[in-house]
Amino acid sequence: MYYLGPEYSFSHEAALKFSNKVYPTKSISEIFYIVEKEKVFGIVPLENSLEGPIHESLDNLFKYDNIYINYVYNMGIKLFLASKDGKIRDTLYTNHYAYKESEEFIKNLNINKIEFVSSTSEAARLAKENNSMCICSKLAVENYGLNIIKEINTENNYTKFALISNKPSYYGNRSIILFTIKNKPGALYNVLKIFYKENINLTMIYSRPLKTIPWEYYFYLEFEGKYNKKLLEQLKNVTEILKFKGSYKIL
Amino acid sequence: MYYLGPEYSFSHEAALKFSNKVYPTKSISEIFYIVEKEKVFGIVPLENSLEGPIHESLDNLFKYDNIYINYVYNMGIKLFLASKDGKIRDTLYTNHYAYKESEEFIKNLNINKIEFVSSTSEAARLAKENNSMCICSKLAVENYGLNIIKEINTENNYTKFALISNKPSYYGNRSIILFTIKNKPGALYNVLKIFYKENINLTMIYSRPLKTIPWEYYFYLEFEGKYNKKLLEQLKNVTEILKFKGSYKIL
Repeated sequence: MYYLGPEYSFSHEAALKFSNKVYPTKSISEIFYIVEKEKVFGIVPLENSLEGPIHESLDNLFKYDNIYINYVYNMGIKLFLASKDGKIRDTLYTNHYAYKESEEFIKNLNINKIEFVSSTSEAARLAKENNSMCICSKLAVENYGLNIIKEINTENNYTKFALISNKPSYYGNRSIILFTIKNKPGALYNVLKIFYKENINLTMIYSRPLKTIPWEYYFYLEFEGKYNKKLLEQLKNVTEILKFKGSYKIL
Repeated sequence: MYYLGPEYSFSHEAALKFSNKVYPTKSISEIFYIVEKEKVFGIVPLENSLEGPIHESLDNLFKYDNIYINYVYNMGIKLFLASKDGKIRDTLYTNHYAYKESEEFIKNLNINKIEFVSSTSEAARLAKENNSMCICSKLAVENYGLNIIKEINTENNYTKFALISNKPSYYGNRSIILFTIKNKPGALYNVLKIFYKENINLTMIYSRPLKTIPWEYYFYLEFEGKYNKKLLEQLKNVTEILKFKGSYKIL
């Protein structure tokens, strides 16, 4: 199973939930590429409860027609401020998301220098190397031999990770579709009407830029219930592009 | 007018479109704080055509009840790879968004070390100081005395900047509302039904985490047309919290 590295990232922890044969990659996009090419499993972050969707995962789900979500794992995220000797230092290494999730906490610290790096585990590695501070997971603290200065109290902080493969899954209690619609009054309304008539609850709806045309979007919609052929046929009539990306269980 | 600094950022360029008395801030959140407290103007990035919404701006629009959008400026974004002497170097400084917008271009460069910093202008400053490369605006290239290695061809790259103040604007041809709804089947459908019946086109809809309750959201919706009291009264009946954030012109 492939995950976003380097080692001891939250993605690493999520991957270990499913398998003990896990391999790091350099980016989320690389995971999609490998999963499609080698017909293996991958684990990617989908959405964080504080910061919202992970765009790179959503955009790749839309891009790769043959990759589906098989399971979703809802992981509680605990962030720690740490350093080599457990003491406050001048410089803090952090990644973009961990920084945003800890912003209130960081403001009160009066840190001289904040260095942005690509992941929480890279932050841990650099904090060790340069005798600085970092924001990272407990797994990273332990594996880089750091000491915790303080647990950052970020209540309600969860990340949903998706187990992806080239095989669609049909029998979970949550499903995801991606779609585009015409840019005209009522287009999105006509899609939602179908869910309303079938009495299906939506659990998530996001719009993402199409990138090829400015200010045009595709939609990312999760609903309660499993794969339903009749529902998808109705949706086909009111969308331009429609992609079913799997019915899955949330662990 | 206050903008996200340091100097020579794209926000700086956008601010100069409206005023020649412009002052940098350290964060988007700081702009909202100052605009409310001092009753002045601010300029904040709202959305990028490739990377989607700027979460910090959206979340602050929701948080600050007395701040409204007065104008939106749709600015074409041209990114440049630059260094002190115009030659390729080992290290690249970039911010998170510029990196995402240039990812395809960067992949082909075989760069040894990528350092993430808080803004494109900070990247330019560090590139000058450390004889490295950066991704930044033409304004930053000129003001830090750098030389362009190559224009990064990011087609369809635009950023919408909002001019914000403590006074609502009522007469533009676009309007924004923020709202929350009950988590039940048909809740969002009931909101969109009103726009459908009034034959009003939606130009943007995003959901954002509420942060206080995991996996609960507020919605950010832009529509064609100006402030309409009757429309807002209908919307009040189908939403829990409803915030009108201004009708404005797009420049």
